[in-house]
Amino acid sequence: MRNFMVTMSFRGTNYHGFQRQESDLKTIQGTVEEGIHRLLGEDAQINGCSRTDAGVHANEYVFSVMLESTINERGIIFGLNGVLPKDISITGCKIVRDDFHARYDCRGKEYVYLIHNSEIRSPFYEDTIYRSWYPIDEKKLDVACKDYIGTHDFKSFCSTDTDKNETVRTIFDFDVTRSGDIVRFRVTGDGFLYNMVRIMVGTLLFINDGKLELHSIPGIISACDRTKAGKTVPPHGLYLNKVFY
Amino acid sequence: MRNFMVTMSFRGTNYHGFQRQESDLKTIQGTVEEGIHRLLGEDAQINGCSRTDAGVHANEYVFSVMLESTINERGIIFGLNGVLPKDISITGCKIVRDDFHARYDCRGKEYVYLIHNSEIRSPFYEDTIYRSWYPIDEKKLDVACKDYIGTHDFKSFCSTDTDKNETVRTIFDFDVTRSGDIVRFRVTGDGFLYNMVRIMVGTLLFINDGKLELHSIPGIISACDRTKAGKTVPPHGLYLNKVFY
Repeated sequence: MRNFMVTMSFRGTNYHGFQRQESDLKTIQGTVEEGIHRLLGEDAQINGCSRTDAGVHANEYVFSVMLESTINERGIIFGLNGVLPKDISITGCKIVRDDFHARYDCRGKEYVYLIHNSEIRSPFYEDTIYRSWYPIDEKKLDVACKDYIGTHDFKSFCSTDTDKNETVRTIFDFDVTRSGDIVRFRVTGDGFLYNMVRIMVGTLLFINDGKLELHSIPGIISACDRTKAGKTVPPHGLYLNKVFY
Repeated sequence: MRNFMVTMSFRGTNYHGFQRQESDLKTIQGTVEEGIHRLLGEDAQINGCSRTDAGVHANEYVFSVMLESTINERGIIFGLNGVLPKDISITGCKIVRDDFHARYDCRGKEYVYLIHNSEIRSPFYEDTIYRSWYPIDEKKLDVACKDYIGTHDFKSFCSTDTDKNETVRTIFDFDVTRSGDIVRFRVTGDGFLYNMVRIMVGTLLFINDGKLELHSIPGIISACDRTKAGKTVPPHGLYLNKVFY
C-alpha cells in the first residue's frame, strides 16, 4: 500500500458537501471513491482536508488515500479525470509518507468569498458568485476585517448547532479587494468553525451597510454570542482556495 | 410607439443562437420576445445587432425594439429580468430615435475568445472557456495577429457554406494576452463573416503549434481559400464583448 496526497478542484453546486452521507445524497467524497473504484477496482476511503457545505466550491482541496494499485501519480490524475464528472477535477498527486493525513496534518487554510456587487445579475455567475446590490466600500471593509486577525475565541462566528466546545482559532490574514464589480474576501487561518467564514463575511456586510460600527468586531468576538454577529451569507460564493501543510 | 435600444448579456450554452428559428428550437430572440409578451402583452419583434451561433456567449449584445407600452427604461430592465431565465440578463435600456436599428446602425464589434491553456480541465470553465493543452506562446501570437489588421478580403476566414459575395472587412485591432492559464484573444472590426473570429483564432493556434509560419496570415488572406486557414475553434470560448454605434 502507498499513501497518495491528491489535490482537486470542484464546483460544489450539485453536491451535498464533501462528506459521504448515510443517505443516497450525492457528495464529493462518495463520487471520488466511486471513481477510484471504477478506475482501480479498489474500495478505498479518502480522507479529506475538511468538510465543506452543500454548494461550497474548492479551487484547491486536498485528500489522502491509501491504495494497493501500482498506478503512478500521473495515472491517478488523468485516470480519475477520465471517470469523474466534469465538475470535479484532479489537479495534482504525489506519494507521501504512510502516516500523512490530509486533515490531521493540515496547518491552515485559505478561503475566498466572492460577491458580484451589482443591481443586475450576470448570466455567468449563477451558483458561483453571490450577488449583493448594496454598494460595497471595499476599502472600509479592508480596514474592518483586520480586527479578525489574531488568536481569539470565535464562538460568535459559529453556527449555534455545532457541538464544538473548543472555539479558539487563529486568523493569520484577511483582506477585501475589488476587481470591477467583483468584491473578493480572502482569509487565512489555522482552522475554521462551522459556517465561520460565511458569518465573518456577513458581519462585514453589516458594517458596510451601517448596521454595525467600523470597529465592532472586537466587541462581537468578546461577547461569545452568535446573535451579535451578522447573517450567514449563502454557500455559493465560498471557495476553499488553498490548504497549507 | 417608442423605439428602445436594449443591451443584454447571455450565456449561450442552452440556446441555438440568437435568431428565431422556424422550428421549436430555443433561441435568444424567441426567449426575449416571449419575455416581452409576458411582461407587456405585446407581440414585438426585436432586431438584434448580429446573429450568433449556438453556444456563443455575449457580454454585451444590443437589440432595438418598438413598443407601445408606456413602461420606462428601468421598468424594462428590471421587468424583463424578472421574467427571463437566469442565463439572459438585461443590462441597459434607453429610448432612441425611431429609425435606429441595432444591426444597420452598428459601426463595429469587439469579440473575445478565451482559452484555458492547461492539461487539466477546470470544473468552473465547462461551456464558457475552450481548453487547449498545447502551451500557447501569447507573445508570439500577439505579433502574428497584427497581420489581420486593416481592410482585406477575408474569404479565407469564412465558412464555405456562406452565401456572402462581399467578403471585405476592416479589422481595427487585435491582441492576444494571458492572465494566469487563461489566454484571451480580442479583436475589433467593422463586421465579421460567418465563423470569421473562430477561424482567425484557429489559424493563430496553427501558428502557435508550428503548423504555419509566424507571418503566414497575409498569404492566407491573399489566397481567398478557406482551406489555407486553420481550423474553426469551438463556439463555447467566444463572446460578443462590445457593440459600437
